[in-house]
Amino acid sequence: MSDTRTMPTRPRHLSSITAWDIDTDVAVIGFGGAGACAAIEAHDNGARVVLFDLASDSGGSTRLSSAEIYMGGGTRVQKACGIEDSVEDMFRFLMASNGPIADEAKVRAYCEGSVDHFDWLTQTLGVPYKDSVYPHRAIMALTDDCLLYTGSEKAWPFTQIATPAPRGHNLQVEGDNGGPLFANILRRNVEERGIEVHFDARALTLVTDDDGTVHGVVVRIDQQERLVRARRGVVLCCGGFVMNEDMIRKHAPMLLGASQPIGNPGDTGSGILMGQGAGAAAINMHEGFVSVPYYPPASLTRGIFVNAQGQRFINEDCYHGRVGYYCLQQPGQRVFLIASAEDFGNYPEGSYLNAQFAGTTEESVEELESELALPPGSLQQTIAYYNAHAARGEDPLFHKSSEWLTPLSLPLAAVDCSPGRGTFYPFFTLGGLDTKVTGEVLTPEGEVIPGLYAAGRTACGVPRTAAGYCSGISVGDASFSGRKAGRSAALRAD
Amino acid sequence: MSDTRTMPTRPRHLSSITAWDIDTDVAVIGFGGAGACAAIEAHDNGARVVLFDLASDSGGSTRLSSAEIYMGGGTRVQKACGIEDSVEDMFRFLMASNGPIADEAKVRAYCEGSVDHFDWLTQTLGVPYKDSVYPHRAIMALTDDCLLYTGSEKAWPFTQIATPAPRGHNLQVEGDNGGPLFANILRRNVEERGIEVHFDARALTLVTDDDGTVHGVVVRIDQQERLVRARRGVVLCCGGFVMNEDMIRKHAPMLLGASQPIGNPGDTGSGILMGQGAGAAAINMHEGFVSVPYYPPASLTRGIFVNAQGQRFINEDCYHGRVGYYCLQQPGQRVFLIASAEDFGNYPEGSYLNAQFAGTTEESVEELESELALPPGSLQQTIAYYNAHAARGEDPLFHKSSEWLTPLSLPLAAVDCSPGRGTFYPFFTLGGLDTKVTGEVLTPEGEVIPGLYAAGRTACGVPRTAAGYCSGISVGDASFSGRKAGRSAALRAD
Repeated sequence: MSDTRTMPTRPRHLSSITAWDIDTDVAVIGFGGAGACAAIEAHDNGARVVLFDLASDSGGSTRLSSAEIYMGGGTRVQKACGIEDSVEDMFRFLMASNGPIADEAKVRAYCEGSVDHFDWLTQTLGVPYKDSVYPHRAIMALTDDCLLYTGSEKAWPFTQIATPAPRGHNLQVEGDNGGPLFANILRRNVEERGIEVHFDARALTLVTDDDGTVHGVVVRIDQQERLVRARRGVVLCCGGFVMNEDMIRKHAPMLLGASQPIGNPGDTGSGILMGQGAGAAAINMHEGFVSVPYYPPASLTRGIFVNAQGQRFINEDCYHGRVGYYCLQQPGQRVFLIASAEDFGNYPEGSYLNAQFAGTTEESVEELESELALPPGSLQQTIAYYNAHAARGEDPLFHKSSEWLTPLSLPLAAVDCSPGRGTFYPFFTLGGLDTKVTGEVLTPEGEVIPGLYAAGRTACGVPRTAAGYCSGISVGDASFSGRKAGRSAALRAD
Repeated sequence: MSDTRTMPTRPRHLSSITAWDIDTDVAVIGFGGAGACAAIEAHDNGARVVLFDLASDSGGSTRLSSAEIYMGGGTRVQKACGIEDSVEDMFRFLMASNGPIADEAKVRAYCEGSVDHFDWLTQTLGVPYKDSVYPHRAIMALTDDCLLYTGSEKAWPFTQIATPAPRGHNLQVEGDNGGPLFANILRRNVEERGIEVHFDARALTLVTDDDGTVHGVVVRIDQQERLVRARRGVVLCCGGFVMNEDMIRKHAPMLLGASQPIGNPGDTGSGILMGQGAGAAAINMHEGFVSVPYYPPASLTRGIFVNAQGQRFINEDCYHGRVGYYCLQQPGQRVFLIASAEDFGNYPEGSYLNAQFAGTTEESVEELESELALPPGSLQQTIAYYNAHAARGEDPLFHKSSEWLTPLSLPLAAVDCSPGRGTFYPFFTLGGLDTKVTGEVLTPEGEVIPGLYAAGRTACGVPRTAAGYCSGISVGDASFSGRKAGRSAALRAD
């Protein structure tokens, strides 16, 4: 530790500071979805706020996303479209889909606060949502319609746990342009409030005292270190660590099986490291979002995924992230998507998947099995079993909905979705600083670190695993947790 | 942080200390396998050493174990028994079995240093090993014979990667008494060296300065805080966190599916927390050892494990830990071990498994399938496929060795190994402080924290996942990494 560079995990000691360059109540690090919402809410709760981002414009990874937001329990759009939903169904679904690592308090707060969050987005910020439904099975709506299913709500086992409802709220904009629109609305709201913003400003480390209380942050602006006093708190909204290959390798090697990090270049884990340097715990660091985006065309949902044993391993009507997660777990690291040729539609032109055809047959399943080098008889047995039951609208193994159950018929085709062989497996991280619902950051022993807050992917929030992911839950969690953190910081005594 | 209790994550600041109660070169926290080896090696490298343990006797979890040690590359016993082994085969096996989270430098050092470690154990410490082989498939040798296979070396896919050799070294003692014998030998060696030992002494937190350097440790002895100066270093050998349910829930919820924590009551994660408080990174916190100890009788290896889909998911000739890991991953959370009735032998009397019979049939597989409430036809198909190939000595799905391939024949029986339903699933943690091969503890950015060392399960060492575990690798890693850490601390300049 003789190195004198400023490193995120080496906080600056308060006693070393004789004069501050900037003095504010709340310093927000990162002007993405979480940071913008934190800044707006802190301002609206009476705090002076300064916002810093290392990029030259706002938006972070939220700008690069579709910016669907997962909301329910009876939002204006749900009601207008005649969709019945309840807080309890939403809660049961999110608890079950996130599994044993779910944070019950966070899920509870997110669900109970969801209608209010919708109203805040629409009425306070001016985010437009059309009172309409996008009825197709898709990764995202490419129209300006609003409501779509973005998770595994209609898929087993979740159908047994909670009444499904579409909760993905797509912004009223044509094409995949929700992210830029949402980011611009957030920026406009920040500007309208006169919140001080510094772009090209890289946070280096926190300022702490002997008790561990956070008093400010060191930021590099114009190649100079600027000492920022934050009398009420620092809110870390710096994204996750998907762009930090060392951290991925150390913490989340499962994601090495995926192909494409999703995020902005600033997602280097710097917020997590700064928090750790100030004594915070990072949790769930091994988990991430991962996807194998095999639909659209939705018709491929009628296909089956098989592993190196020629066995199915999932109901194919799940969300693409859940399927992607299980693809990465398969023994033998081989995965094929097999469907009737007609169900491939205009694949590959219309597909995100980028998977290559590995075999086709007009003759027999045996021929395809041989082409794919699957164990003799395995695929024949799998398809015979699947077809016999699908003909009756049943899937006794994995309970795919009868809506998608059709016997596979010749000609058949298979694409190779084996991880690491070129198929598109986007991923980002879901581990981060341990926080309370308030956004307060915790030590490994669960103590609050006074003056430190985190939100979005710098924190470990509602979404905890690809196995239970739904599109819109990360931007939803970022905006929701950003608000909580901003408000908590603003209301903390100086 | 207004609480004034001493918490592990809140280090004492050097500047607050005016006088030390104990002054030494190396303070070792924990007198289990790792701590004893650290203390001995530090002493033998010229350091004054003081050893602290919160228990009233030595041994820690090592004393409670079988104390097999995983060693290879041509140990005296291997050579005497005509076993061919090489450092490279051992290295390839351990890298493959630990998967993408393997630490190559640690695995390399462990394998290259293995023969030397054997010689140190036998010649320096006096650990007795008989030059003999225990030839059975078993969890542990209950005779005084030495060498046995304690991992998945002879199972696919590892047979494709490295030439197998037995590397589990069982101490020369009858029964499951290796742990007490090993612990007593370690204690005798500590005593013979005149190393100062404090029992009933609980380490509370580390002493650090502004630069993060560790200067000592606060220990509670006789209800009084004692300030221990460690001029060269503090070595944390406090075990893992298997007895800390909050930490298990937060970090390793997969282990909640297991049934029985394995360790001593002091395995509360205190060493990990003390390290984190001093700025250290904890890694691999989600992983643990878990097992479903279904053999002996070895004959049950001829059985098959099936999941809720009636599908096999593993070659049943793997190590019981690897099988246990995959049992916990199965969709639907149901797992049955099905075998010909004769292969159950004197089960349950001779079994560790504690699993209940869930079904038996003298009539047909269909009857058993129905008793187990498996999907209609699924088990019939699985067993028909298995039997047809087993008759030819083949397992095209999972490549179980022909040694264990016999068609399943009526009468059949099934025991319910579903996690959480009473079956014995022992577990302990494999996450811990990030360290170098030297035992030096690292920050999240990979910087060395001067004066801080960790070993055994307080550190994240060679064993990283149940999926690749082999018995003897944890005591092996503890004793090996303890030595490294003790030596490094002893040789650090004051």
